[in-house]
Amino acid sequence: MRPMPKTSSALSERNLPIGVFDSGVGGLTVVRQIHRALPKEDLVYLGDTARVPYGTKAPSTVIRFAWEDTEFLLSRKVKAIVVACNTASAWALPTLQREFPLPVFGVIQPGAEAALAKTRSGRIGVIGTRATIRSQAYPDAIRAYNGRAKVFGQPCPLLVPLVEEGWLRHPVTRTVVQGYLAPLLRRRIDTLVLACTHYPLLKPAIQRVAGREVALVDSAETCAEFVRDQLVELDLVYEGRRTRGKIYPFVTDEADRFEAAASRFLRFPTAPARRVALPTVSG
Amino acid sequence: MRPMPKTSSALSERNLPIGVFDSGVGGLTVVRQIHRALPKEDLVYLGDTARVPYGTKAPSTVIRFAWEDTEFLLSRKVKAIVVACNTASAWALPTLQREFPLPVFGVIQPGAEAALAKTRSGRIGVIGTRATIRSQAYPDAIRAYNGRAKVFGQPCPLLVPLVEEGWLRHPVTRTVVQGYLAPLLRRRIDTLVLACTHYPLLKPAIQRVAGREVALVDSAETCAEFVRDQLVELDLVYEGRRTRGKIYPFVTDEADRFEAAASRFLRFPTAPARRVALPTVSG
Repeated sequence: MRPMPKTSSALSERNLPIGVFDSGVGGLTVVRQIHRALPKEDLVYLGDTARVPYGTKAPSTVIRFAWEDTEFLLSRKVKAIVVACNTASAWALPTLQREFPLPVFGVIQPGAEAALAKTRSGRIGVIGTRATIRSQAYPDAIRAYNGRAKVFGQPCPLLVPLVEEGWLRHPVTRTVVQGYLAPLLRRRIDTLVLACTHYPLLKPAIQRVAGREVALVDSAETCAEFVRDQLVELDLVYEGRRTRGKIYPFVTDEADRFEAAASRFLRFPTAPARRVALPTVSG
Repeated sequence: MRPMPKTSSALSERNLPIGVFDSGVGGLTVVRQIHRALPKEDLVYLGDTARVPYGTKAPSTVIRFAWEDTEFLLSRKVKAIVVACNTASAWALPTLQREFPLPVFGVIQPGAEAALAKTRSGRIGVIGTRATIRSQAYPDAIRAYNGRAKVFGQPCPLLVPLVEEGWLRHPVTRTVVQGYLAPLLRRRIDTLVLACTHYPLLKPAIQRVAGREVALVDSAETCAEFVRDQLVELDLVYEGRRTRGKIYPFVTDEADRFEAAASRFLRFPTAPARRVALPTVSG
């Protein structure tokens, strides 16, 4: 697969949309934050809802899926790509950045920087899918900035199903969160990275269990700020006159379920989602 | 997609393997039971571990995946196909039976028959994935035999993640099972169909919550008996001399995780799994 030649002039390139992909609908928490940080930008969102989740799957599978997601977004003529999925960021980002001819941003570097900005003790917890934690992507990124930081990872495979069941304040959820956080709290972390798109919906439950003295890092928020700073630096910020960009959602499973997801993860309505088949035939 | 012509003679056809597919590794509970009921048969197992689960996805996606799984098994020259996945059986079985030139068996008809054989009051509960319950496949199958039966469905989306987390006897699992079964027990069911490949691992927890007076129907067990009866009727039972057939596992995610799954769901080791890419390029 060869890089595509850049064809647009800088001017028109600025006014192209930003592409965002995720394993499913959770990445809408990232879209929500990007839309707040960069309200004029158009956003093309791809949720790979037919193959969700990525977080239980092996690196080579996650890389293949992320590659196909990126190719789809390229076909929609985006100026940059945001990998909203922590698992895909953890395993596929270096490959995508090397192989595709446009800026590709992930959620991990901004989350790592935010954690280091917040921690006082240098003891940082990271919760995510099995695949994200196994990748060591957060410890590697954090220690690249500060070699003395201590990073403790905890896979939390039940949290995504609990969010998808809608049990955000259910006693079972509190018990599960307590079980997952106990080993991290014993390590006396003072900062906790929510390294999965679904976890912002559990912020109240997580904060209650972790206690007020533990600072939470929401990787969706920090990613959006990072994307804004990078687009400014690359001179790629939209410069037309409109005040509000649009969101164009695409999914790989049936499109009619998207509306409910938008109301939960994005909290405002979008245009109807369109369905695409991946991998595309032209590959 | 045209049916393939039958080429084997009846004699050699009998000695071909049986193909079994599932969305992931849970279908090994069905393989386990088929291997007990038909110990001489070779079994080719395909677990679509790269795209698991099916139970949260829409009918057209499940049908497409089941179609691709069936095509792969056909390419391995099997004499019959067992759809071990309840969700795939619920949505795709009629299509597969109509479009493919070999016997295709699902788990629903045998489960429905077994439930009717066990119930005294005619009040039957069914637990499964959201997609299985939404399909109404069990109520339809049960009422086709006995129009007066009352069937109550309950989706249990957290049970598969809990089994995959290994929390078979965890207090959280008991609480979740209690919550899911409460509406069924209020309906005074006397029989409960475990309509998902993962649920046999939760049998003790489910029986404890449901009480001894509720009979459990294990769709893996009843499916295996049904497959044996059907192969006898179709004159397709293996008739060579060996005493024990082999199991040939294939997966779509990385193969090295299969061993642990085999020890949990199958409870004995197999040959190493091989990885295949779906959909295959030749389609």
